[in-house]
This record gives sequence, C-alpha cells and structure tokens, in this order.
Amino acid sequence: MIETDLDLLIYGSLLLTMSKEETVIENPVLGIRDGKIVFVMKDEAFPEDAYRAKKILNRRNTLIMPGLVNTHTHLAMTCFRGMADDLPLMTWLNEHIFPAEAQHVNPEMVYAGSLLAMAEMILSGTTTFSDGYFFVDSVTRAAKEAGMRAVISQGFIDFPTPDTPDTSRQMDAVRRLLSEQKFASPLIQPALFCHSPYTCSPETLVRIKEAAREADILYILHLSETREEVSLIQDRYGKRPALHLRDLDVLDSKTLVVHCAWLDEEEQDILAKWNVRVSHAPQSNMKLAAGIAPIPAMQARGITIGLGTDGSASNNDLDLFLEMDTAAKIHKVAALDPTVMNARQVVRMATLDGARALGMEDRVGSIEVGKAADLIILDLNQPHLTPMYNPYSHLVYAVSGADVLTSIINGKVVMEDRKLCHLDLEAIMKEVNKIAKRIRNSRLK
Amino acid sequence: MIETDLDLLIYGSLLLTMSKEETVIENPVLGIRDGKIVFVMKDEAFPEDAYRAKKILNRRNTLIMPGLVNTHTHLAMTCFRGMADDLPLMTWLNEHIFPAEAQHVNPEMVYAGSLLAMAEMILSGTTTFSDGYFFVDSVTRAAKEAGMRAVISQGFIDFPTPDTPDTSRQMDAVRRLLSEQKFASPLIQPALFCHSPYTCSPETLVRIKEAAREADILYILHLSETREEVSLIQDRYGKRPALHLRDLDVLDSKTLVVHCAWLDEEEQDILAKWNVRVSHAPQSNMKLAAGIAPIPAMQARGITIGLGTDGSASNNDLDLFLEMDTAAKIHKVAALDPTVMNARQVVRMATLDGARALGMEDRVGSIEVGKAADLIILDLNQPHLTPMYNPYSHLVYAVSGADVLTSIINGKVVMEDRKLCHLDLEAIMKEVNKIAKRIRNSRLK
Ligand SMILES: [Zn+2]
Ligand SMILES: [Zn+2]
Repeated sequence: MIETDLDLLIYGSLLLTMSKEETVIENPVLGIRDGKIVFVMKDEAFPEDAYRAKKILNRRNTLIMPGLVNTHTHLAMTCFRGMADDLPLMTWLNEHIFPAEAQHVNPEMVYAGSLLAMAEMILSGTTTFSDGYFFVDSVTRAAKEAGMRAVISQGFIDFPTPDTPDTSRQMDAVRRLLSEQKFASPLIQPALFCHSPYTCSPETLVRIKEAAREADILYILHLSETREEVSLIQDRYGKRPALHLRDLDVLDSKTLVVHCAWLDEEEQDILAKWNVRVSHAPQSNMKLAAGIAPIPAMQARGITIGLGTDGSASNNDLDLFLEMDTAAKIHKVAALDPTVMNARQVVRMATLDGARALGMEDRVGSIEVGKAADLIILDLNQPHLTPMYNPYSHLVYAVSGADVLTSIINGKVVMEDRKLCHLDLEAIMKEVNKIAKRIRNSRLK
Repeated sequence: MIETDLDLLIYGSLLLTMSKEETVIENPVLGIRDGKIVFVMKDEAFPEDAYRAKKILNRRNTLIMPGLVNTHTHLAMTCFRGMADDLPLMTWLNEHIFPAEAQHVNPEMVYAGSLLAMAEMILSGTTTFSDGYFFVDSVTRAAKEAGMRAVISQGFIDFPTPDTPDTSRQMDAVRRLLSEQKFASPLIQPALFCHSPYTCSPETLVRIKEAAREADILYILHLSETREEVSLIQDRYGKRPALHLRDLDVLDSKTLVVHCAWLDEEEQDILAKWNVRVSHAPQSNMKLAAGIAPIPAMQARGITIGLGTDGSASNNDLDLFLEMDTAAKIHKVAALDPTVMNARQVVRMATLDGARALGMEDRVGSIEVGKAADLIILDLNQPHLTPMYNPYSHLVYAVSGADVLTSIINGKVVMEDRKLCHLDLEAIMKEVNKIAKRIRNSRLK
C-alpha cells in the first residue's frame, strides 16, 4: 500500500535535529517532499512500503544535521582573498581594501566572486548565508543559480561606493532593492546593511533603518569591531556605540549587529533589552586583531548569537566548521575556563541560533517536520573522526568543511558526494582568476 | 644522453623551499634519488633528457612544500578523541584521562591508536612527528609500517604507569628504549619525555636528563601549561618552573619544552640563554583553557619554536594546517596587533623551525639539495584557494589538511592522490572502534 510519494528519502547512521529538544536519532530515515521535511524517525520504525521516493540517498556511516547558517559575510571579497594580510586594520581597510573596491568592484566581479563563495560554502556545509555588499542584483543572480538560501543586503556607507557613487542617492538603492529583490525567489530575502556607526552618519543610520522597518526586513550593521571605533564614536557623539544606536532608535529584533568585540556591560544590557541579534565572527576578529567579543556574557543575558565567517579578505575561508572550532576555543582561553562554551552550544550557534539571528527560525536551523529541507550529510568514516564518543564534540573540534559529502537546500540536492550539482566550478574559478589578474596588475603599478 | 637515474621526478606549479632564503620557485621540477633531493629548479632550466626517472609525478596546479613537522603529540590518544571535552584541565586529567589510561593503555591499544594517528597525519601533510607516550615499541612498529619520520619518546611520570607500574624501575625503561629503539630505523630517533616538573620529582627529572645526555638524545617535558602548575611549583620549590629546571641543570639545546603558556620574562631569558627549544600547541592551550603562550616575545629573544598539535584528546585533530591558522590568529588578537605574527613566520614554525626544535634541521624542514625528500603536494585548484596572491597566506589562513594530495617521506610516496600507500585505513579504523567500544562500556559502569 503506497500512501504517498516523496521527492527524496535519506538514510544515515546518526541525525542531530538541533531542535529545541536537541534530539539525536540513531539509524535515522528522513523524507522530503516539496522542499519540506515530511518525517524524520528511527529506521526500525519506518514503514518502508508506505512511501515511494523519486530519489533515495542511502548513506550509512554518515551524520545528518541541519545545513549551517553563515550570519555574516561579504561574498564577492573572495576576489581579494589573501591580497593583503597581517596588516593593521585601518591600513588594511584604507590602503588596500577600500582602494581595491573602488577600482575593481562592478557587477561582473560581484557575480563571479559571489558564485565562487557559494561554491565554497556549499562544499563546506553552509546552506544559508547573510551577505552584505554592493550590486545586490549580481549576488541574487548567483544565489538563484547556486540554489542557496540567502539574506542579501544592500551596503551603505557615507562615501562614494561602486554602486552608489553619489551618496545623496542612497534611497534610490533602497527602492531598487525593494522593488526588484524582495520577491526574486522564495529562498531570498532582501535586507539593508549600514557599514558601521563610524562610517555612516546618524541621518544615514536612521533613514536606512526607517526604510527597513517599513519593508519589514533585516537591518544589519558592524558594531564595535575595534577599540579605535569605540573611541571615535565617543569623541564624536559623547557616548559608546550601542548607546548611540539606541538613542537613534535603530535597535529592535530585526537589527543584526556584527562583531561586538568591545561592548561593555551596559551596552550588552541594551542589546538584550531591545532583543537585538548578534553575529559573531571570531576568526575575522582574531586575524584583524580586533578583539574577543564577550559572547558568554551576552549569551548569559539571553541574546541570540549566530556565527559568521566575515568576508574572505579577513578570515580567509568561508568554512563555518572551522569557525565553530575557533568560537569554542577562543572563549575558553579568554576566560581561562573551559566550561564557558561547550561544543553543543557552538553547534547551536551555527544552526538554530544562526537562523534566529536572521529571523528564519520558523523555516531553517533544525531538522523538524514541516521545516524546509536544508540539511547536510557528513562522512564519519574517516581517521580524524574515529572513534566517536560525542557527535557535537566532533563537529566542533575535529570536522572541517571537507567532510561534508552532500548538501541539500529546500529539498534540492546542491552537492552530492562532493560534486556540485548546479555550478560549473572550473568556469567560476577561471573567471575569478581572470579578475584577480587585473587586481594584481593594478597593485603592481 | 642519460646522465643518471632518479627514483622520482616531480613537476608542480609552485614550490616553497622554506630554506633560509625562503626561495619560491614557479613551475618547479624536483628530482629524488635514494631518499634525498638531488635537484630542484625551474622547469624551463631542466635538461629533461639528462635524467631517467622510475616514477614521474606530473602535478600541475599544485604547490610543493616541505612536509610538516609536528613537534608534540601523544599519538595513541586518538583512542580517547572527544571522550571528555569542555571540562576543567584537572578534572579532565584526573577524572577522565589518567583513569582511562590506567585501564586501557596497553601495547595493542598504543599500536592501533598510533597507526590511526599516523594515517591522519599523513593525510593532512605531516611527515615528521615527535610522540611522547608509553609502550614505545608499539609506536615504533607503527611508524615503520607507516613509513613516517619520528622522534619517539618514552614517557615518565612519578606514579605507576601502564608500562612502568613500579616507578623505581624507570631506568629499566630507559635501558630498554636505548638498546632496542635507537637503531630501529634510520627514520626513527628515540627520546626521553618527563611528563612535567609537577608530576616528576627533581630526582626523576635529573636522572632522565642524565640518561638523555649520555645517549645524546632529545629530552622533552611539558612546562608551564597552566597557572595552577606555576603556583604548585612555586609552593613546592620556592621558584618559578623554568628556574627550577635551570637549577636542576636539565636545560640545554637538546631539551624541548612544550606549552610554555605562563613563562615570565626572566624565564624566557633563561630558555634563550640555554638555547632550549620550544613546542607551541595553541589549539590545545585554548581548548583546555590553559593560556596563551608569549610566542612573539620568545621569538624576539631568538628562541626556536615549532608547532605541535598535542594529543587528540585535547585538540581534537592532528591537522597542523589548522594549528598554523590558530597560531597566526591567537597572537594577533592577544596583542591586539596583527603584525606580531605573519603567515610566513608561521609556515616556518611548521617546517624548518619545527625541524630545528627536534634537532633535525640538517635533514628535514626545507626543500634543499642533499636534504631528505620529505615533502607534500597540495591541490591549488579549489574554490577556497582561488585566487592566490600570496602562497604563505593561503597555507596559514585557507588551506586545511584535506588539501594535501600527495605526501613523500624519505623519497617514498606514502600517500598518492589522497590514497594511503602503506596503511590499510579501514582495518585500522575497525580496530580502534573495537577499542573505543571497550572504553565506552567501561565508562558506562
Ligand atoms: Zn563584515
Ligand atoms: Zn602534551
């Protein structure tokens, strides 16, 4: 008796739901139809005859878990990966990144760089990302081709940018985004991204937040990445950055602040009170010597915190598994206390809490019936993952993105056995290498 | 006209010698005979007809570099990987690791766990390791089978251990090691390893160092891993740990001290003065919340510092590329200065400086004519390594062990295109899983 048809039926050896209950299922079987999870249960309880599936992935000796959520990145910066490292943050930004962006960022570069980033993310287990950059049409086009779930935000900064050379025309960019992007695809949501309180005037910060509120979309900004930034804001406005933002009335549950390395206790209380979401990018903060964000203290206040890789100019990869490893370790050593951040908490930051940070927890971040089928399948049959006493510990301390075999987004297999299904990787790399050659030549002058 | 025969001829697209001059060669070709590097030059200068090679590896779009040197690990602890994480160091050691070792460490476990570790190391680019554990005959047997270059040290601690239940018989273990091990293989050197100044009495520390001096071999010990350890030594001996060791006269250029997270300036001066070598294991120090070693300050004093992963119970993998990434980032954020540690310095720590730390710089750590052919070939044709502006930056900030295609030790190919040549990986994992089942069951009681 065939009850119903499925698009996809998956067998594994272990499944982490990352639901609120954090259920772990041994010998799981999972059914997908119309992009959604229809059931997830133990193999032995599964009425095999009741279903007919279009495709079956029989993957014993694998771990199935929700696809990872990268809450902060600048995808097209793959084109600048490793271009200028080991430099002071302001030198890096002002003498390398900003000039290179002024000269080389254009719709073609953003398209190629974003596609490359998406290939890298899919290959390392990320299924949802939040991007902030320029030429969002290019990012959207790439995301559709890659089949990724995304928050794609238009970047604003109070000096001429590649896509908004006249800063008085910022609202045109907002209108463009909202008219063209919002309903571009059910997998893609637009957002607005102000670079930071030190590069955006109070007027810009407020105007963009108002537009975000009106459209009911996410408002993103870098906050307190460095000590220098805190001093600058204090000198300019007579208060610390989070207070500045609160007084401008731009804080609420649809505001996502990134970095937060230098928030004092009062500022943490403010974020908690206004239910602001935080994106934590520890590898970028370490590489740029920005600081160590007080994540355990913010978690104790109930603040929702997701993980982000930041752009590949400041990390330099987009592998969220390595970000998890760093997140677990850096807070332990900063507090000289190994109990302040455990492996399970960190996996939650990269999955359900990341989804919450982006306001997408109703759809993704955990494997539950009715949610979107965004999940990844990891190969456990490897020396560095042998033996296994605790799956969370492995995910954080031993897995890297290269261990992901198969990635599924909204029920579609986007990578199977490490082969990308929708992207022509060789062509993408060739295109980015061409762009990099121009960048290299212009820097030699 | 064929001048001479080669065992192996390798073509790549980029070669980092990591010699003192740090020469980088584009389109390199490299010849190997009798385990040694016979020549390394630009492809265009290569007189192809002059050589006949038994085997040719034509690997365009790859980077060739010296094999990595892991200066500190406890290989067989792979059997305890992830068994007990996120716990205070002393709880972890006294309630989990030491009891598990007392119950489960035996020659078979050390053999199986070490073989698994070697498989993992070869797959992630390490060609030389320095191990400190028990049942060194088992480690030596595994290293010979794996074809790895190794310093294998007998561990000592002043309480009954699996291989020396009667601590008054420690010198028997020394004699056993020196009679059986020393000439076991040209790739393997014995060493003596005292666990630490807080678990070994002054008498043990001195007696073992004397034996090491007599045999002219390396003497290894953990030093100042935690603050607690420093207090303990101060309480017991009225001085800080490095002064305690100096006053016992156990410091010289054949002493390798591991961790050094809490050395003050006077202690750093002492290590520099006595030319003591240091092994730095940042991931372990972070995960166990031990502390951040003052590596830039020690490098400024001219101290030779290699990188180590430590055992897989405290990291939890043996991937030295990830250790490099962490080493570069942690010192930047600790100093809030991104210039204190650059990518090239870190690659040197994992290659030539690691070899120096083990006293093997005459043979390994760089690609130079006359040196042993210990090298690895990395796949550059990957999204997370595209584009490439700076190879050192990629190696530290973007490469992981999974990017290593081929590993060569003493002229022998031990892994080719990610397949291990001498080890039966499935059988090794099966054996370790069997041991892990026993460990799991004993912990459930
Ligand atoms: Zn950012
Ligand atoms: Zn150790």
